[in-house]
Amino acid sequence: MNSIKYTDPGSVPQIMKRSVDAFHIYKGAGIKKRAELLNAISNELGSISSELIEIAETETNLDPARLRAELKRTQFQLQSYGEACTNGSALEIRIDLPKETSGQPDLRKMRVPLGPVVVFGASNFPFAYSTAGGDTASALAAGCSVIVKAHPAHAQTSQLVAEAIGKAIEYCGLPPDLFIHIHAHSFDTAHALVLHPLTSAVAFTGSYEGGKALFDLASSRPVPIPVFAEMGSVNPVFIMPGKMRSAQKELAQVLAASISQGAGQFCTQPGILAALEGEELHALEEELVMLLHEVPFQKMLHEGIERNFIDKKETALSQEGVEVARLDNELKNLKRSEIKPILATVSAKKYLENSLLHQEVFGPFSLLVRCASLVEMRQVAASLEGQLTASVFADPGELDQELTSILQGKCGRFIYNGVPTGVTVSGAMHHGGPFPATTDSRFSAVGADGIKRFSRPLCFQNWNDELLPDALKNSNPLQLLRTINDMPSRDPID
Amino acid sequence: MNSIKYTDPGSVPQIMKRSVDAFHIYKGAGIKKRAELLNAISNELGSISSELIEIAETETNLDPARLRAELKRTQFQLQSYGEACTNGSALEIRIDLPKETSGQPDLRKMRVPLGPVVVFGASNFPFAYSTAGGDTASALAAGCSVIVKAHPAHAQTSQLVAEAIGKAIEYCGLPPDLFIHIHAHSFDTAHALVLHPLTSAVAFTGSYEGGKALFDLASSRPVPIPVFAEMGSVNPVFIMPGKMRSAQKELAQVLAASISQGAGQFCTQPGILAALEGEELHALEEELVMLLHEVPFQKMLHEGIERNFIDKKETALSQEGVEVARLDNELKNLKRSEIKPILATVSAKKYLENSLLHQEVFGPFSLLVRCASLVEMRQVAASLEGQLTASVFADPGELDQELTSILQGKCGRFIYNGVPTGVTVSGAMHHGGPFPATTDSRFSAVGADGIKRFSRPLCFQNWNDELLPDALKNSNPLQLLRTINDMPSRDPID
Repeated sequence: MNSIKYTDPGSVPQIMKRSVDAFHIYKGAGIKKRAELLNAISNELGSISSELIEIAETETNLDPARLRAELKRTQFQLQSYGEACTNGSALEIRIDLPKETSGQPDLRKMRVPLGPVVVFGASNFPFAYSTAGGDTASALAAGCSVIVKAHPAHAQTSQLVAEAIGKAIEYCGLPPDLFIHIHAHSFDTAHALVLHPLTSAVAFTGSYEGGKALFDLASSRPVPIPVFAEMGSVNPVFIMPGKMRSAQKELAQVLAASISQGAGQFCTQPGILAALEGEELHALEEELVMLLHEVPFQKMLHEGIERNFIDKKETALSQEGVEVARLDNELKNLKRSEIKPILATVSAKKYLENSLLHQEVFGPFSLLVRCASLVEMRQVAASLEGQLTASVFADPGELDQELTSILQGKCGRFIYNGVPTGVTVSGAMHHGGPFPATTDSRFSAVGADGIKRFSRPLCFQNWNDELLPDALKNSNPLQLLRTINDMPSRDPID
Repeated sequence: MNSIKYTDPGSVPQIMKRSVDAFHIYKGAGIKKRAELLNAISNELGSISSELIEIAETETNLDPARLRAELKRTQFQLQSYGEACTNGSALEIRIDLPKETSGQPDLRKMRVPLGPVVVFGASNFPFAYSTAGGDTASALAAGCSVIVKAHPAHAQTSQLVAEAIGKAIEYCGLPPDLFIHIHAHSFDTAHALVLHPLTSAVAFTGSYEGGKALFDLASSRPVPIPVFAEMGSVNPVFIMPGKMRSAQKELAQVLAASISQGAGQFCTQPGILAALEGEELHALEEELVMLLHEVPFQKMLHEGIERNFIDKKETALSQEGVEVARLDNELKNLKRSEIKPILATVSAKKYLENSLLHQEVFGPFSLLVRCASLVEMRQVAASLEGQLTASVFADPGELDQELTSILQGKCGRFIYNGVPTGVTVSGAMHHGGPFPATTDSRFSAVGADGIKRFSRPLCFQNWNDELLPDALKNSNPLQLLRTINDMPSRDPID
């Protein structure tokens, strides 16, 4: 194991100076170089995969199969953001050729990088949303330099990933400071990074408290900078009676898997189920509780997260009207170190009265909200804060338009007859949502569109062809997809 | 003239309730309805154009020709954002069809409106960046309801425009509260609007002080909301010696026109000229001063803006090392109410030492920064804050790569051998820039991409075709441009 060197706030000015110097070189290296780098990082990670999985296993309690899948996803993510550079979609090029009639000049717009980006990774995805995860990949694809503060819960894994990135940078002939990896004990270093004038943007995945503190800090700067923080979500699942009748067993199975998968440590874990009270719900609940009961004891990522889970779960269970769902009664007296998925229930009435029950309990916990009527279901939906996802299980005929309309206004991804867990990396994916799910609902943490968090449009007016960046030249030498006079095209301009 | 009814902060909750109710109806009316509305507003404005120009002339001191052109631009803007709805580009649709191999579900993403948007228009564009201007057009195209606080400097014009919008809304069978127009005496009402929980976003065009105050207010909310504020810009123009030699007269002409046009009351007015000291600069300066001297006395938009101009100009002129350019010496003693374009000069050394000289003097004032060397030119560029535009006048051979690279990092639009004034409405236009030019460099105030300030992606996962919004259905009934499996297409999906 590597010994860890900690960075104090006093080193931040020098770190940011190094980062911005590297940024200026990288900015000039062109879009194809970015793709080369992203693919090189993917290769480096692949070449040390066994070592990475071994060390991550010791640090995170996640099983090797899951870690292997996550590492593959991380590599795919790097490659696909590289592809967004290669094909040009990351640049969002628009060209309007001059019009003599209206006096419109020659206008050519592409996205350019913001500058050095500070990334705070997630504890629950040591690969995919951490050191070489979605935020780092997005920032590098945007053309930015990156400073990652390692998550202390997997500091050694982070160190190893950082070394792989370092090798990829060297392989590509880019400046080593393009990616700077630091460990820090205190919040002071994180604050100094966010407040430093050379920092251009911040990406964060984690708790509401952490994300909101960084957002406030960044907004308070003399020059405010964008913070994309993905924070919490209870990912509500609304279930209509017909579906409970027609697909009770399947429903219970997918829900149990989604609630308990990875000890519930997913940002898309379904923390709230809402359904109409009645026979169908009783049957579903019984089935679900049985399935959850069969899940073996689980270990959480680290002690801090486990303590937090147990405290929040106990607080939720101590609220008026909240009961542990029947078969699980014995679990109420579990030892604190024994983690089992828990289904609790509460009436919609009590849920609506108690904002504490709206908060995320990060871990294998789900609250079943029993609604006396469709009106109450709508009220529950309307009472929700912003979410990453919302799901509806229903037969087509029984969908309530008002309910679906309310839910669409609350979430970034709206799922039909499916659970929220499972976030594929693709262009049409959206992983974001209204506050407090994220700090800016207009951007995504997953998929190549997430690159746009760290770039901005720059319009070149009336530049001679030979003076333009390659991406905007008439001959389209990089063979990028561009929008020319409002029409998508890969053709050169005559 | 209509008598004006003022709104107090106490009315804000009721206003926002009305707005959000109208929003929900509009949201469900579909993208084609938005295009219909935008075109109807354009038609209504056209049908009362004489009346509008007459009243605007009395309120703003702008001449009828300019107002006519601005009204036409406003109509074109409404129509072109309508076109972005009709062709679907405003929705940025991405569809990824399911892949059995990877288990990827059916994902279909489109942009949906944020909710009610509060618009604070500009004083200098009574039509194009005010009541029915770019922000209102963008918000309506995004599917949002709009609350406009009328600019007091053209309250009657604003009232008349609002009535035209009301007629268009009625013509389209949409709820009257989709657009709410208010007058307010105090900042309290503006603050109450920004702080109200139902407000989803804010658009502002005006001073740094105003925009920053709204940004801070919105960031301080329990649920922060996006503020797009276009604030100030000095739009630096860098001039290389070869160009001064080869095109001295033309250069002086375009600069004089750009500095003095509309009494310099444009957000893209060139407030800073930077050039290498020498024979060429002396000749250019002489020519420029002569041309500016020939500009007749001008009237500014209103007393407040005039007072502000005179104060800021006098402060700038009183700084150490700042001189009025030669021929203009007599202007130093102008009566306060006489507005003439002024060229002042200062050495780069003094400019770099004095941050006050970096501030915008809104009006017909430009500061010529004399640089002793190319290194000093680069230093001047590097010292600039974020800008809407930057221009370089140069023969191709004499461009300095370091200088152009610095300037690209500072601006949203980068112009070659042209002045910054003249912002065409088109897809490739970018009217934005790093802070403090705007509060978010990733968005534009002009062009259909500006619609994205007020919408966010929503991804539909695994919805049956008949349950999807029309825009996402397989048959593409609205014939929109969509990206399907990463390829742009207007085709239906088989």
